[in-house]
Amino acid sequence: MTYNLVLLRHGQSEWNQKNLFTGWVDVPLTEQGRTEAARAGELLAEKNLLPEVLHTSRLKRAIITADIALEHADRAWIDVKRSWRLNERHYGALQGKNKKEIRDEFGEEQFMTWRRSFDTPPPVLDDSSEWSQAGDPRYANLGDAIPRTECLADVIVRMLPYWYDSIVPDLQLGRTVLVTAHGNSLRALVKHLDGISDADIPSLNIPTGIPLHYELDESFAPLNPGGTYLDAAAAEAAIGQVANQGR
Amino acid sequence: MTYNLVLLRHGQSEWNQKNLFTGWVDVPLTEQGRTEAARAGELLAEKNLLPEVLHTSRLKRAIITADIALEHADRAWIDVKRSWRLNERHYGALQGKNKKEIRDEFGEEQFMTWRRSFDTPPPVLDDSSEWSQAGDPRYANLGDAIPRTECLADVIVRMLPYWYDSIVPDLQLGRTVLVTAHGNSLRALVKHLDGISDADIPSLNIPTGIPLHYELDESFAPLNPGGTYLDAAAAEAAIGQVANQGR
Repeated sequence: MTYNLVLLRHGQSEWNQKNLFTGWVDVPLTEQGRTEAARAGELLAEKNLLPEVLHTSRLKRAIITADIALEHADRAWIDVKRSWRLNERHYGALQGKNKKEIRDEFGEEQFMTWRRSFDTPPPVLDDSSEWSQAGDPRYANLGDAIPRTECLADVIVRMLPYWYDSIVPDLQLGRTVLVTAHGNSLRALVKHLDGISDADIPSLNIPTGIPLHYELDESFAPLNPGGTYLDAAAAEAAIGQVANQGR
Repeated sequence: MTYNLVLLRHGQSEWNQKNLFTGWVDVPLTEQGRTEAARAGELLAEKNLLPEVLHTSRLKRAIITADIALEHADRAWIDVKRSWRLNERHYGALQGKNKKEIRDEFGEEQFMTWRRSFDTPPPVLDDSSEWSQAGDPRYANLGDAIPRTECLADVIVRMLPYWYDSIVPDLQLGRTVLVTAHGNSLRALVKHLDGISDADIPSLNIPTGIPLHYELDESFAPLNPGGTYLDAAAAEAAIGQVANQGR
């Protein structure tokens, strides 16, 4: 038995475009982001890689990306499951801040530490901030355990229970699983799948809007390490751009 | 405890516009249908009647209506459940046929019997028809029990198990439930909720794209019999138009 897993990072959001740290702030897609999502759905249809169940975060940029992609792959009818555990990394006090301004104010080294350090989170976001998610009804189940900042190590810890308990069981049913999520929640999953080291994960970038297909063996290890982008040329071009954010 | 149930009939589909019998054929929304869906979401937000869980059919005109409505109500993040039991009535051999042509060919009486009779289904649709759903993977769980024609009485029989086993339990959790479905699956539900007789149900029309709010008591009986349309004037105007289809 080979299992089919497709990862999809949401298309451009309004804050990607404005170069702001977003994290858990629930910003909408831009028109370009919607176009990317439609193209992702067309790629799924062209490759006949048709999802049988969808998992998304609780953030609209991932949810709407999935809605549009599935509409264009003519698979809107599949089952849907959502979890905060697939949300983007919580960017703490950086949420709502301009990436370039933060880099200019705090310097390249601090900027890169906050963006890419495996285990150093940014300062916590105060609950009184307009960019806090404290009190948001979609996270009411978390009570006071709602994140207020996260590093990538934190994302792995909160994402993996969802992988083992919700995504893997769908794979075990033989279903082609689509996971539509975010740069850092998908990096956390790819790190787990490909066994990437803490030292190497900072340099891994996942482009937006291009489905990434993993074929997994019976122990859920990749038969195609690193996965296969459904549009390899576009993925290569986009990976360079992601690395240059904040410049 | 008062329970909040919101029913939403999908916006105009391409076959509504072409005046064809649709049933289980999975046709897309028109641009007008998408605009209706957006307006439905705005009504939910304006009335602060915010869904906490969504139930849809397996047909894209209902699914995309819900996607668009929830995006415009800023509630895309809620849980989603889908079932064939909320699908439109299967129109049998009429699927894909023009309503006016059927009326001209078979006469007003036969036309109205097929459209509105409570317990007389149209002729069965052959599995070899291009408009058959036999073999569609989304209904694979039904095996040979997949519908090939239905009257409204059949729809009630297959819809009610979903009402009792999936929708009511969500109401019991105190969640505001949105059901996005079709003219006949919603008529079946309204017949059940309001205790409408077999004789009276043929004259009940539910307009597209206007949320219909029921407040239910602890035994799930309406506190506002007939429900409350969130745009009463638009509903009244639209009900007249639905009754005139095929003319």
